[in-house]
Formats: sequence, C-alpha cells, structure tokens
Amino acid sequence: MDMLWSGWGDPAKAAPLPDSVTGLLRDLLGVKPRDTDTHDLEEISVPEPPPATALRALADAVGGAAHVRTDTESRIRHTRGKSTPDLLKIRAGDAGDAPAAVVLPATHDEVLAVLRACAEHGLAVVPFGGGTSVVGGLAPERSTFVALDLRRMNGMLDIDPVSRTATLQPGLRAPDAEALLAEYGFTLGHFPQSYEWATIGGFAAARSSGQASAGYGRFDEMVLGLTLATPKGTLDVGRAPRSAAGPDLRQLILGSEGAFGVITSVTVRIRPLPQTRIYEGWRFASFEEGTTALRRLAQDGPRPTVLRLSDETETFVGLAQPDAIGSAEAPTDAGCTAIAGYEGTEEDTAYRREQAAAVLRAAGGTYLGAEPGERWAHGRYSAPYLRDALLDAGAFAETLETATFWSRVPELYAAVRAALTGTLSAAGTPPLVMCHISHVYENGASLYFTVVSAQGEDAVAHWAPAKQAANEAVLGAGGTISHHHGVGTDHRDWYLREAGPLGIEALRAVKRRLDPDGLLNPGILLPID
Amino acid sequence: MDMLWSGWGDPAKAAPLPDSVTGLLRDLLGVKPRDTDTHDLEEISVPEPPPATALRALADAVGGAAHVRTDTESRIRHTRGKSTPDLLKIRAGDAGDAPAAVVLPATHDEVLAVLRACAEHGLAVVPFGGGTSVVGGLAPERSTFVALDLRRMNGMLDIDPVSRTATLQPGLRAPDAEALLAEYGFTLGHFPQSYEWATIGGFAAARSSGQASAGYGRFDEMVLGLTLATPKGTLDVGRAPRSAAGPDLRQLILGSEGAFGVITSVTVRIRPLPQTRIYEGWRFASFEEGTTALRRLAQDGPRPTVLRLSDETETFVGLAQPDAIGSAEAPTDAGCTAIAGYEGTEEDTAYRREQAAAVLRAAGGTYLGAEPGERWAHGRYSAPYLRDALLDAGAFAETLETATFWSRVPELYAAVRAALTGTLSAAGTPPLVMCHISHVYENGASLYFTVVSAQGEDAVAHWAPAKQAANEAVLGAGGTISHHHGVGTDHRDWYLREAGPLGIEALRAVKRRLDPDGLLNPGILLPID
Repeated sequence: MDMLWSGWGDPAKAAPLPDSVTGLLRDLLGVKPRDTDTHDLEEISVPEPPPATALRALADAVGGAAHVRTDTESRIRHTRGKSTPDLLKIRAGDAGDAPAAVVLPATHDEVLAVLRACAEHGLAVVPFGGGTSVVGGLAPERSTFVALDLRRMNGMLDIDPVSRTATLQPGLRAPDAEALLAEYGFTLGHFPQSYEWATIGGFAAARSSGQASAGYGRFDEMVLGLTLATPKGTLDVGRAPRSAAGPDLRQLILGSEGAFGVITSVTVRIRPLPQTRIYEGWRFASFEEGTTALRRLAQDGPRPTVLRLSDETETFVGLAQPDAIGSAEAPTDAGCTAIAGYEGTEEDTAYRREQAAAVLRAAGGTYLGAEPGERWAHGRYSAPYLRDALLDAGAFAETLETATFWSRVPELYAAVRAALTGTLSAAGTPPLVMCHISHVYENGASLYFTVVSAQGEDAVAHWAPAKQAANEAVLGAGGTISHHHGVGTDHRDWYLREAGPLGIEALRAVKRRLDPDGLLNPGILLPID
Repeated sequence: MDMLWSGWGDPAKAAPLPDSVTGLLRDLLGVKPRDTDTHDLEEISVPEPPPATALRALADAVGGAAHVRTDTESRIRHTRGKSTPDLLKIRAGDAGDAPAAVVLPATHDEVLAVLRACAEHGLAVVPFGGGTSVVGGLAPERSTFVALDLRRMNGMLDIDPVSRTATLQPGLRAPDAEALLAEYGFTLGHFPQSYEWATIGGFAAARSSGQASAGYGRFDEMVLGLTLATPKGTLDVGRAPRSAAGPDLRQLILGSEGAFGVITSVTVRIRPLPQTRIYEGWRFASFEEGTTALRRLAQDGPRPTVLRLSDETETFVGLAQPDAIGSAEAPTDAGCTAIAGYEGTEEDTAYRREQAAAVLRAAGGTYLGAEPGERWAHGRYSAPYLRDALLDAGAFAETLETATFWSRVPELYAAVRAALTGTLSAAGTPPLVMCHISHVYENGASLYFTVVSAQGEDAVAHWAPAKQAANEAVLGAGGTISHHHGVGTDHRDWYLREAGPLGIEALRAVKRRLDPDGLLNPGILLPID
C-alpha cells in the first residue's frame, strides 16, 4: 500500500480531532479554521519528464519500461518527504520538487546500471525508501532528478541464527523485516515513529533511532555490514563485528544520506523475539527530577528497553497519550510522566523491572501502573496522524530534536524552548512547546520537541524563522543539530558548522572520489561542489 | 621511567625462564641456546640527524632545544615498536628505522607548529605514545622522519562527573589515567596487555581493546570526542554521545593510526570504580564447547566483565598462567580453561556471577574456583616479559589476532592454526600454536594466537612466510586482518584487500585533504601516494 500522498500513513487510519481539542486550540493558541483543502492530485502540475533517450536508458538499466514511471501520481508520491513544510507545500499543490521520473531497480547491479545511465544523461539521483524524511532529505538542489525507489529490493538475503545476523535489502519496510525475522524467532527491535513506513536502507542512511533504543540500541549500532552502490563501483564493508583494521568504514556510510552512494544491503544484528513486553508509567514532580532518574538508569542500570520522559507541558497536554488529548482525563497537575518498558525473557524482564523500579522510586518517582504504558504503546505510531488532523484544523504542528551530554541537558532544553517560544510569540502565534527525552545513553540524552501554534498567513514562511532560531539555540547550547532525524537540506547549513570546515572537507573529499559528477542527492547533507 | 629499549617493560621485572621450561623448549620444539647477546645501545649506529636549520625550526615549534633530542639513546628508544621482529632487529643492533630526531610538544598548538616545521623542512612525522605497536606502526616507509613523542601531553583536561566523561591528553599512560580518574572515584576500564606502557592517544589511533572489553567495551566504544591536529588545521569532533548529523567522524579518526593527523585530546566515557572484582576459572571439555558457552553469555547475558577461553594447547602449556608454565602443575588432560571476571557494585556483581555461572554450567562448564582467575589476574600483563625470556633462551615467540562472526569461528581457528603449523613445520621448526578468545560480542569474537618455535637461522626472515600464510588464512576464512593490534606496515597489504579498492580510495581522499604532502606516517595504514 502507498502512503497518503498529501499527509501521513494509511488514509483509513486518519481521524478528525475531537471537538474538545479544536476548542483547546482555539482558546489557548488562537487557531482559526482556515481553508486547508488539499488540491486534487491529478490537477497538480509537475516538471517535464526526462527526454525519451534518457528514459530508454533507464528502462534498459532496470529490465524494462514497466519499472520507469513518469505519470503525475507516481512523481507526486515521490515529491519531498513528510516534514510539516513538505505537507503544507504539497497540500497547496506545489510539486516543484517532483522527480522527473521514478525508477525501480530490482538488484544491486541494476542500481549500478541506473547510476551509469544517469551519469550519461545528466540526471541526478535521489534514493527513495519509505519517503518519510522530515529534514528535506528528498528535495535535492537540482531541478532534474530521478527518484530511485527501492521497493522492489525488499527481501532478506541471508540469516545466520548462530551469529545472530541477517542481511536485508534496503527497500524492506520495518514491519516486513520484523515479519521475515519472526519466522526464525528473531526481531530487529527497531521501532521509530516512522516504523510502519520506513525502510532498512533509510534507517541506515539517516542513522535512525527507535523508541526501544535503550534496549536494542540505535540503528547504527545494529549495523554490522553494508553494501554501497556508487558511481565508481561497489563498496562492501564489515568483515567482523569489530575490527582494528583502520577507520570503521561502516560509520562513514551510516549517516551519509545517499550522498556517497545507494545502500543496497544491510547486515544487521538480530535478537530473539521477546517473551514478554511490559510498559509502565511513572510520575516525577519535575522534568529535572525525571531527567536525573533516567540518567541513573542509563548510567548504572538496569536498562529498560523503552525509557522516555515527557516534560510538564507535554504531560499536561497529553500528547504523549494522543488518545486522551484534551479529554477530561488530562490532569491539571500532572508533573512529568515517564514510560519505562521491558522486553525480553520473563526472568530477565522481571529482574530488570524490579531493579529499575527501585531506582526510579529512589529518584522520586511515583508508580502509575501499566495503564499509561499501555496507552503509550497503543499510540506509539499515531503522532503523525494527529499532525494531519491538526493541519486540517488550521493549526501548525512540527517536531525537532537534538542530543547532548547529561550536564548540558538543562541548558539545551531551556535554550530551544526559549527560541521557539520567543520567535513564534513575537510573530503573533504564541506556541505550545512540548518536549520529551526518548533516547538515553550513559553520557547523555536526546531532546525531542513538539511545537503547536496557530498558522501564520503563509504557514511555511511563518515557521522558518522559528526553526532557524531553534537550530541556532541547539548549536549555541552545545547540542547536535540532529539526534535521529538527520541533516537533509533543512539542517545542512548548521551541520556544516557542527562538523567544522575540515570535517566537511574530509567528507567532500570522499564524495568527490565516490561520486565525482555529483549525481547523488545534490545539496543534501553536503553542499553542491 | 622508560621502557627497556631492547625488549619489554621494566627491566627490574625481567625473569629468566625456569629450567623446566628450557627443557620443554628443547625437548618439544628443538630450541637450541644461541648467542642472543644484545648489542650495547651506545654502539649502535643511527642515521644522520636533520640539518641544523630544521632542528632550529623544530625547537622553535616546541619552546626550545630542550624538547628536541638527537642523541643516539633517545633515537633508539623511538625505533620501531615491540613486535618480535622489532625486538630481534634492535637486539641485533639494527637501528636503520631510527627517527632523525625526537620532538616533544607540550600543547595542541605546538603539535600544529611541529607539523608546519616538518612540512617546511621535508620531514615526515611519526606520532609516538607508548611505543608499544606490534604491527610496524612506528616504522614509516621514509628514511628521514621525526618521532613526535607525546609524553609531555599527559594530563586530564576536564572531567564531568554528571555526564561521566573525561578529556584526556594523548600522551597519558593508562595507569596514570586510572590514577587521575580514581581521585574522582572513576575508572576508564581499559586494560590491554600493553596497559602499563600504552597511552590514550595510541589506544584511540589503533582501536585498542582491553582484557575487560566484555564489561567496559572496546576503546573505540569509549570515545565520545577527539581533537586532531593535521597539516591543514584542527578537526574537533563529538558534540553529543550519539548523533544523526552525518557520518560519525570520530570513527574516521579512530583507527587512522596517525595517517590523518595527531590526536591531541580524547574525551572518553568513564565509570564508577568497581566495589568488587572477582575472577574465576571454568573448564570445558573442548574449545568448541567453550566457544559455545562464551557465545551464550555474549548473546543472552549476563555479561561478565572479563571473559576468555584458552584452547586445548594454550591450556596445556599453561601460557594462560605464565607462573605455572612447564611446572608439575600443568595438567595433561586439562581440556580448555576459561576465565570469567566480574567487576561492579557488590549487588550487580553477585547477580551477574550467579546467573553467568548457571549459563556456563548448562553449557558444560566445570567450576574451577577462584584460583585460576586470580592467577590470570596476577599475570595479566606478564606475557611480553615471558617473550623476552623466550627470545633469550633462543626460542621464537610471537602473537597475532583476528575476529569474525560466531558461525565462522571454527573455520577461522582451523585455518590460521594450519597455516602457522604448516609453514613452520615445513621450514623445520614445528611450532606450538596456542589460541584464546578474549573479546566477545553478540555477533562474533576475536581469536588470539601465540606461536612458539625454534628460531630459524635468520629468525626474522624465517618468521615472515609463516606470518604471511597466517594473514592469507585470516582473509581466506573471512576474518579481519586485525581485531585490536592494528594495521601498521605489517598488515597493510592485507588491509588493502580487506577494505577493498574503493574503501581505500575513500580513505586516501581523506588523507590527501588533511595531509596533502603525506607527512604523517608515510606507508603506515595506507600506501604512499
């Protein structure tokens, strides 16, 4: 099934906002209903397709014209990603960033052939997995490009139950990967919010991190091997779990966001399917108290599989529990809600749960029982649907995220909140800024912000200064410009500052070597040469 | 204190082999006493020092001529590393690879100044930490070079007890790092066999892995930030524990072995000093049985802090227990000895120990009590001293190591053993080949081989074909050319094959950008351009 072209996910799962929420938006944020009717897909105009000679060459590369698409619908479905500005633009009928064609290779060699054809015909290439980028990762700075849709490369190439590894193709969606692994009793354990749509290749290219990262690790920590198809040939890395044979080339490909090549296979660590899954709620008096509690577990253990903490505002609004938003259930003095989840064998889960509970209690936590955890688990992939409904109601809603070391978390939290609130309030649309910690490490944590406000007259232009101010605040307070969304085009200019001139030059040197004509994702991650 | 120039460690700790061992070597391996008298240091000739203008420029870079040394002793003390061929050459009075001068910078800026001076005067630069390389990492393929000794950069620049990080200078030796951290109640937890001499910068440059890696991780997993001084300026990486902002540049510097720049600071993860340390012995009937037991713990936990398994030969010879080698205590049907160690809080240690014991027992293990563990802990840094004594006795002794995925461990083990035994037997010096697993991961493990045989007429030349055969066996059986010793010059040609042409070209592109004149470690890790 294809994702809703003008929003998120399965159209059948879309739900309008309850009246209570509409009232809350109106009364609290001054959101007014506006004409947000989405254009009719077939009426949207897209740029010219490539010339016939180029299309023939692409068809030859992928085994026939059936796997090269130039119809409007296919091209609009591959236009940009799923950031709020992306949705606002496509809803408004702006498909200026549509690919000239959509090409669907079935093998590594076909990907190499597409790259050759594109080099010959002067076409840029944008690899396309689930299409879920929220950082402009699918909107290159070049007008004529081909979307390289990897959906036909969606199999499991190998599984090694002894070593607990599996080699997966890049276009495999996460639920399909889980289904294939489950037949052997294994799980990947990677459950980001985009889980239902995102693909293995995208997880690797963008250094994804899932909601169970405390237990299963980030995606980049799961990767043991990669194959990369580049305009200069094939790069195959990962002969051992760990090695001292030079720099770790896997870590050069992970996070390269398609700028160096197209990931055509990923060998990942797999784990036995958990016997048990328990998610529970805890209450802390303040975000500070809760942050300290999470730090204790991250540093001294035992480590839950899922560990997250909403700040006061997010707890109040109940966005952590989308089903309850604005309902009478939303408490008025809720403090901060944390979710701790445990997955594994029954014995190990019981031990970790008991030990972690003691730590959380000692850190000031009040046990809220299983209900908040189950509600979180039930709604864990719903937030993007809620955003569609908010946009429909005339509100603006967007998210951004960062990470830093524990000692800097309070400063980073305050700086980003102040930047968002200050900018949007000054522009006449005071926002609700909510935040949660959802990924913890021994040495630091991520901060994930959700902003809801009234839309400005031009909603995309209205948001831009707030996003810029947030990015400045992130760098100013010592955070990274992205913990798990990636760089794309939206974060690129701040990424250049974060990595520093010499770091960027090192990466550009790699790109020049692997992609000398700059075919791949021009302007994404790295500036055009 | 300086290390013994012609061997390992503190000369006061040297001990001759017991007569029983000498007898064993003679009867089992045909080792004959030979004239192994080491030359007198002052009589060894070294290449010409650099011209006076270059020396003046170097002195200016490091705040005075006191920090530029050209005397014979200093230069011999910075000649090559501590592989067995290195020791045999220097014992024989061959200092052909001696640096032209030894330069001792005190700051990052002084390192940059040295690089500028060397560029101006056409001198290559070899960073020097503990001097413990066993892979030719200190013997560049260029005749005139400066050893950049980092011993004056041996402080702790920062400690953050909340985030549990510390920023250390590269010339800090591991025991001194532990002493500095212990004042704050912390440990780094990195204890390789070279622990008493090796430095923080060297650990990072060569992707070191310590004996407690099961609990504390590899050194590359401990690193959160790095500063690199390159001929083109400074590269500063690591703004957050984890990030999705592009490829992980830390992992490009880790393992770069000085080819891209000089590491001038390392920010590491630190942990609370353990309350308890327990090391115990287990017996398995076979290496295969023991390997499966280790895999169970590595995959399903609980993870001991130290976990190692000697094969039948190593167990028999008792090299895992150097004090007992050749003594009457050495059992004749010992099976395979494993050591499991636990460090941490008393409660956590007790829990892990109990759970791990159940796993080991279920996997066929017999508990041997604390004695083998304590003996291992007592002798954990002694093997290099034993090697000196073996060389003194006229024997040859060397180690090499690799890693692979669990399912390939048996094949890799057999292939390397066969290569070493076959080559040396055919050359008339049938060896003892011992092996242990000392680093485990969810998906695989390291294999560490020790070879003891009679020396050939020319011991260095005699060993070369065996080492080459072992390298071929490693690659042929799917292993990595090094799990923790690194690449240097000894493994370089096999590393080129492991990383593949495009991987190597990507790294050369980085080197060209950061070190365009090829000043740094010419021929080490990467071939000269």
